[in-house]
Amino acid sequence: MNFDVTGGHGVEPGQLRRAPMFSSLSEETLSTLGQSAELRIYERDETLFSAGEHPEYLHILIKGSVQLGATSEEREAVVELLRPVDAFLMAAVFTGQPYLMSAKALTTAHILQIPSQALLRQMTADPQLGMNMLGSLAQHYRQMVRQVKNLRLRTAAQRLALYLLHLVESDNSGRSTTLPYDKRLLAAHLDMTPESLSRSIADLRKHGVDVRKDQVSITDLEKLRAFCRLDQVLDALEADLKVIAPQDD
Amino acid sequence: MNFDVTGGHGVEPGQLRRAPMFSSLSEETLSTLGQSAELRIYERDETLFSAGEHPEYLHILIKGSVQLGATSEEREAVVELLRPVDAFLMAAVFTGQPYLMSAKALTTAHILQIPSQALLRQMTADPQLGMNMLGSLAQHYRQMVRQVKNLRLRTAAQRLALYLLHLVESDNSGRSTTLPYDKRLLAAHLDMTPESLSRSIADLRKHGVDVRKDQVSITDLEKLRAFCRLDQVLDALEADLKVIAPQDD
Repeated sequence: MNFDVTGGHGVEPGQLRRAPMFSSLSEETLSTLGQSAELRIYERDETLFSAGEHPEYLHILIKGSVQLGATSEEREAVVELLRPVDAFLMAAVFTGQPYLMSAKALTTAHILQIPSQALLRQMTADPQLGMNMLGSLAQHYRQMVRQVKNLRLRTAAQRLALYLLHLVESDNSGRSTTLPYDKRLLAAHLDMTPESLSRSIADLRKHGVDVRKDQVSITDLEKLRAFCRLDQVLDALEADLKVIAPQDD
Repeated sequence: MNFDVTGGHGVEPGQLRRAPMFSSLSEETLSTLGQSAELRIYERDETLFSAGEHPEYLHILIKGSVQLGATSEEREAVVELLRPVDAFLMAAVFTGQPYLMSAKALTTAHILQIPSQALLRQMTADPQLGMNMLGSLAQHYRQMVRQVKNLRLRTAAQRLALYLLHLVESDNSGRSTTLPYDKRLLAAHLDMTPESLSRSIADLRKHGVDVRKDQVSITDLEKLRAFCRLDQVLDALEADLKVIAPQDD
């Protein structure tokens, strides 16, 4: 994914097309969106926006890593760890409601920003854009339902086991891979303390996965699947969901 | 909300229009949707669909009460308690993916069923229908984000306190109301055991709310808000969210 930083001169349609949610759109729609879009680079630890703010842009992560999180007086939750290419918190943008979570760059992050008004106007002009957004929002909704189910139906060790299974699966790396985040962040994402993460990592050795420093090796896939109660349908990874085309009458 | 049971003869446009997500649509769209729609009555405890099934209809709760839930070998979670009028699990319908949760009638429930294919065809024919669905899905997404935040940032007693605050607020009943569900169900909804629900109810007397049997009285609103760390913006109740109309260029 190569997007050029624009410095206030818009984004070329051909660049927008590389984002899955834009790939099927007309040249005209991409050209209109591109005119008001900007590519911005955020430094590591920089805040993109805070919970409670009203959205001005649709944000799309192009390169790097972003966390969505929330805090109370006592606690901090890392709700999502985003990887490119993904639009995020679009529900607030469409409805003009305040963001429910804050977004922070975890690495240098390249973010495509499309002004809300330009996006809404173009959704009216080109219904296919609205449909693509509906598919993307549906995917994010299902991701949140999965998180609720994980928090309520799985133990912390089972959540970690499922995370490691999906990590290896999404990397297409056979049975071993590298943790993409440090353990403090991973614990905050999985609703664990760093101490309970360490204990769970030790426990999981007898359930089919070995984590040494940031190296993950699955030693017994079936045992690991059984341990985290993997459901092949309900726990399947979903990417680039689209609204299905209706069949002819 | 008076919808007539149709027994296979479709639903009148005027009846569909009473559902907020349909209220702004053209007579033509409602007439087309109504021709293939059915109103079905489910008995108490009857299953509407199970997690893992592929959606055939968009379900809209017209009257009565429905729970969305999920189970593992060891646990059961009641994720949402729906009240009319509300469409549910539409993300699965739009994308043709399996349901992630099961739906069960908690009372006799009147359900409007619109075949997925008819809905998708009409969304293509009338972009406003797609926009209304986007607004409704955005609201459900934000509801799930709130649940994740509640599970991760609030204690069980704080979740109960917030639930009671919202209950009194949504009933517009001043400072007292009646619990709409039995305590076993409420505990399953708030991710508590029935025992911890009883303890929390006793504890909450000193934090501004008194629950005796099914009667709820808020005795000190400010104390209760402070106890559950109410954020007036982030915890606001949202209903009938719509995609905002773009301003003129």
